[in-house]
Amino acid sequence: MALTLELAKRINSLSFNELPDAAIHWAKVGILDMVGVTLAGSREDATRIVENVTLYSMEGPSLIFGRGRRAGPLDAALVNGTASHALDYDDCNNTFGGHPSVPVLPALFALADDIGASGREFLAAYVAGFETECKIAMGVQFHHYTKGWHPTATLGVFGSAAACSKLLRLPDDKVATALAIAASLASGIKSNFGTMVKPLHIGHCTRNGLFAALLARDGFTAGDRAFEHKQGFFNVFNGEGNYDAAKILPAWAKPLDIVKPGIAIKQYPCCGSTHSALDAILGLAREHKPAADDIERVDVWTHTRRLEHTNRPEPKSDLDAKFSVQYCMVRALLDRKIAIEHFEGKAFDEPAVRRLLPRVHAAPYTTAQFPAENHFGAEVRITLRGGAVLSAKTDQPFGRTSDNPLPASLLKEKFDNCAVRVLPGERAAQLYSAIQGFENLKDVREVTAIIASETRKQAAA
Amino acid sequence: MALTLELAKRINSLSFNELPDAAIHWAKVGILDMVGVTLAGSREDATRIVENVTLYSMEGPSLIFGRGRRAGPLDAALVNGTASHALDYDDCNNTFGGHPSVPVLPALFALADDIGASGREFLAAYVAGFETECKIAMGVQFHHYTKGWHPTATLGVFGSAAACSKLLRLPDDKVATALAIAASLASGIKSNFGTMVKPLHIGHCTRNGLFAALLARDGFTAGDRAFEHKQGFFNVFNGEGNYDAAKILPAWAKPLDIVKPGIAIKQYPCCGSTHSALDAILGLAREHKPAADDIERVDVWTHTRRLEHTNRPEPKSDLDAKFSVQYCMVRALLDRKIAIEHFEGKAFDEPAVRRLLPRVHAAPYTTAQFPAENHFGAEVRITLRGGAVLSAKTDQPFGRTSDNPLPASLLKEKFDNCAVRVLPGERAAQLYSAIQGFENLKDVREVTAIIASETRKQAAA
Repeated sequence: MALTLELAKRINSLSFNELPDAAIHWAKVGILDMVGVTLAGSREDATRIVENVTLYSMEGPSLIFGRGRRAGPLDAALVNGTASHALDYDDCNNTFGGHPSVPVLPALFALADDIGASGREFLAAYVAGFETECKIAMGVQFHHYTKGWHPTATLGVFGSAAACSKLLRLPDDKVATALAIAASLASGIKSNFGTMVKPLHIGHCTRNGLFAALLARDGFTAGDRAFEHKQGFFNVFNGEGNYDAAKILPAWAKPLDIVKPGIAIKQYPCCGSTHSALDAILGLAREHKPAADDIERVDVWTHTRRLEHTNRPEPKSDLDAKFSVQYCMVRALLDRKIAIEHFEGKAFDEPAVRRLLPRVHAAPYTTAQFPAENHFGAEVRITLRGGAVLSAKTDQPFGRTSDNPLPASLLKEKFDNCAVRVLPGERAAQLYSAIQGFENLKDVREVTAIIASETRKQAAA
Repeated sequence: MALTLELAKRINSLSFNELPDAAIHWAKVGILDMVGVTLAGSREDATRIVENVTLYSMEGPSLIFGRGRRAGPLDAALVNGTASHALDYDDCNNTFGGHPSVPVLPALFALADDIGASGREFLAAYVAGFETECKIAMGVQFHHYTKGWHPTATLGVFGSAAACSKLLRLPDDKVATALAIAASLASGIKSNFGTMVKPLHIGHCTRNGLFAALLARDGFTAGDRAFEHKQGFFNVFNGEGNYDAAKILPAWAKPLDIVKPGIAIKQYPCCGSTHSALDAILGLAREHKPAADDIERVDVWTHTRRLEHTNRPEPKSDLDAKFSVQYCMVRALLDRKIAIEHFEGKAFDEPAVRRLLPRVHAAPYTTAQFPAENHFGAEVRITLRGGAVLSAKTDQPFGRTSDNPLPASLLKEKFDNCAVRVLPGERAAQLYSAIQGFENLKDVREVTAIIASETRKQAAA
């Protein structure tokens, strides 16, 4: 049997009622995170340009996040998908080798706005899409990534097609057709990383997965061996000998990838190599609340490989600041949190920052501090005037796998920081609550209605 | 200098006033052919499904060919691009290894409907797009094709991006950006050949090229070494050692690819391996007008490799009929032309056809008939009751290269057959004239206005 059809049967067999509680928990975490970063990303230039270019078609049922306007489902998926990755602040998954939620959720929200869907249907579709893209990844990674494909897009398109097919309740053969169509729409190369094209990859792939599902629904035809054909996805994208299709089906739901390794939440809107040190210093800053003037010296140790690109004692731009472990330490001490606005405009150059920066000293850690195999650790030591020392160590940043989850309070803190850029505080709170009870939603349009209801004035600018 | 920027300079340097007459001639041939097959293809299921799925966005300036409705430029390019290849009846180019006009022209018409463009600007943009995709092909073909990419789509997207950038009068750096964005949107694999996804590839690529140009216009950013980057188009799509980038720039406009090898016109809407025999028998049928009852026997010889897939003495379906050299011979004798409707519905099974079919005998030709190296020949012999014999030989079908062009009368015959499926005869004639004077058009919207003006009733069904 063709792989597309084997996958289709599994996609359709997955039902909400049989999902483990952990899958539902993590799916809601993923939705919360995606909604937050998409709202925050809705104001980025990449998103606005994509919206402007598709302007003619801005009529339809599907909400453009952060704008209070609606469009056709394909266009909404495109714009919201771009927004969801515009800040590169969305969740990750280690199996996938990319960002698992943003290829799936923007298309699902756009489709649900059109056809309506219960929270349970939506959750099951999301988990199925997530599982599809991750298990295909098992067959093609990490050659696929190393070669230069952007897996979030080139594999994510299958997650989107699977999830949308399931929400549309397509029969197995049409789900298989949607996956086959998706194989012809898969695209995105890494030479465009570091530019607006990276988030565009996501908008494009989530739209294309939805497009494939809608075409299949209406009777479109496609090849029946899209993956294993001599000129199919495996051979054309990875090349003979560079994939192992046999790994895919046996791994299906054993366990569900959204449960283990799970969703990695990116807690801070800056380079991941600074996150362990931020966990450590924020703990100290929040507990001891040292005043800036009392801080004589800060020492931070991270893995040498991470320090290579984060040792930037004098950041010169907002982007530079995202990669400066020194700046991140200063911000954590000054604000006792790390937020998107700290990497915008001239925040990196504020006088209070400039005063503290020279006191921060970064160095690689030694094997006396962490075992050689640990690349994720960080140690921070704050020396106060008068000689008192505050210090903390982190072995691994919060949130990287489901074994070391981000506490709910920090998840909410991130969500709030993102959402209030677009929504008034009380609406953000209402949205947070609605997502906490996602499985009880009669119609997911209740969520997009909250987002649409009171977008802050500057949103329409 | 990056290849995208080198190409951009050449794309922008190409001006209508310096085009050789032959380029203008062939560009008009290509436009005529594309408009005809797109009108005919506008009624195909693949096209209708794509239109239905993008339905929400059907408001805007750009005509959907054959439907008398308008949409946003991106959606119009998508739908018309699918239509243009739905019958697989559009032109070819030997350098490109694919269909050179359909990636470029649907996007150009959709864009011109929005921003307006003179015939001369449009022609220059078309020639530039054609040249861009063909010269890139020189660097990556035919490994690219053999591996399983669909070059009409994966290379055509650059033709579309180049042509649209030129029509938008973007500066060099933005043209380069459009090409770099296009590299991330390139997609389409051959495992989906023989299904509706094949024409979808064209709709998708022509839309994506336009999309890339519009994004670049509005300030989108992209990688500056999209082709030659370690994880750029060449390495990711072809793989190291499987391309030769040095072939591309020196070949630019020496000569223009639209001039030589030029545009290959597909004269008949059936398998190309029947075309030489059709040229031969149609010559006899039109000159001698033999009545069906007078025909005792028909012998047809084609190359043995072509006969393998066209030796179908008793076609069982409309698709089967497209690959039956016997059926094609009968149709030529009965109707003295070959038209789209001969491969629709039950035309293959009409009584008059069934009477003649058993009298047609197909065989491979010998080296006594054609030199061993000729794979394009055909010989036909008609034996009439009473013993008279009519015979004809063709070395190569009309239209395959610009050295052996299709006569203008046959081009018009094909166009008429296509266009009158959608337009009343007098409108088709008006359209033909307008395209003959394309370089004199003040605004290309004059052409789409003719197409829009009087679409035949059944079009709206």
